[in-house]
Amino acid sequence: MNYPNRLNKTYNRHINYENRGMSLEDDINKSNDYYRLYDLAIIYKKPTPITLMEVDYKNNIINKAKFKIPSTTDYNGIYKGKYIDFEAKETMSKTSFPLANIHTHQIEHLKSIYKHGGIGFIIVRFNKLGITFLLEINKLNIDNRKSIPLSYFKEYGYIIEEGFNPRLNYIKIIDKLLEV
Amino acid sequence: MNYPNRLNKTYNRHINYENRGMSLEDDINKSNDYYRLYDLAIIYKKPTPITLMEVDYKNNIINKAKFKIPSTTDYNGIYKGKYIDFEAKETMSKTSFPLANIHTHQIEHLKSIYKHGGIGFIIVRFNKLGITFLLEINKLNIDNRKSIPLSYFKEYGYIIEEGFNPRLNYIKIIDKLLEV
Repeated sequence: MNYPNRLNKTYNRHINYENRGMSLEDDINKSNDYYRLYDLAIIYKKPTPITLMEVDYKNNIINKAKFKIPSTTDYNGIYKGKYIDFEAKETMSKTSFPLANIHTHQIEHLKSIYKHGGIGFIIVRFNKLGITFLLEINKLNIDNRKSIPLSYFKEYGYIIEEGFNPRLNYIKIIDKLLEV
Repeated sequence: MNYPNRLNKTYNRHINYENRGMSLEDDINKSNDYYRLYDLAIIYKKPTPITLMEVDYKNNIINKAKFKIPSTTDYNGIYKGKYIDFEAKETMSKTSFPLANIHTHQIEHLKSIYKHGGIGFIIVRFNKLGITFLLEINKLNIDNRKSIPLSYFKEYGYIIEEGFNPRLNYIKIIDKLLEV
């Protein structure tokens, strides 16, 4: 793979997007909408897990609740008959992705998905660089690491093409993974 | 399949469970815990979708929120490399399952999963009879129907074995479906 070239090309294209104010979550949700509209993949973001504390069931109103630490990842679904599961994170760092951004049990969950024959990965956007990577979970070794350097993503990950629609065409990378 | 016999056997066994106060959701969640513990399947209940209205992010407290109509189903995950997706419902009726219990778009979602090569189904418990069925989505025709009669479940569905652990061994039915 011709990484340096692809990287420069993508980098330049993305510079313009840097301050457009679209979050990674927005981009992924909109891409998933696109995939569903064209019946390519069925992938959803899971709702945010909460603990209910005070509920007015009569009026369907929650008066008190707390955010819970999620047991799994944010996104899952199906593509070409395969189970897909991933977590997506942004970082402002230009040099590495701090692993504090992902819960250890989320990594464990993804490794377990891989073991069961599913496709598990993380999507990481380096906001200041305007580059978004997909890194397969079986390439992710977190032993004694505090962060994953950008160079690691360049070597073992895939740059996700960005565009108008879908904004983040990550299933194109999954196609590559399925070819192997 | 020897339905009448299995039915009676299961029916008798379940009579005792009728008033134990365990909800279908509890039983499925506990069964999923069991499957994960023994690394057989990774299936989770999705969090309940809500619309946040007032959040105190500093203290991690939600002061107002509303329940949302779910866009998909309650449960999904992976078993033997296959994408699994289902909705589970209880009914107090002894004769039929009212389709008002399931949103039309949930049925559409499950049919779409089937089309994409996943395994989609509904789990329906007849509380007064103490019988829980698994019905594959491709056997579920809802055109102009208000309910699905018990006899339909007996003919086209599978009775899920109940026990101590797992409480509802529904992946045993999936094994049967995968054999075909």
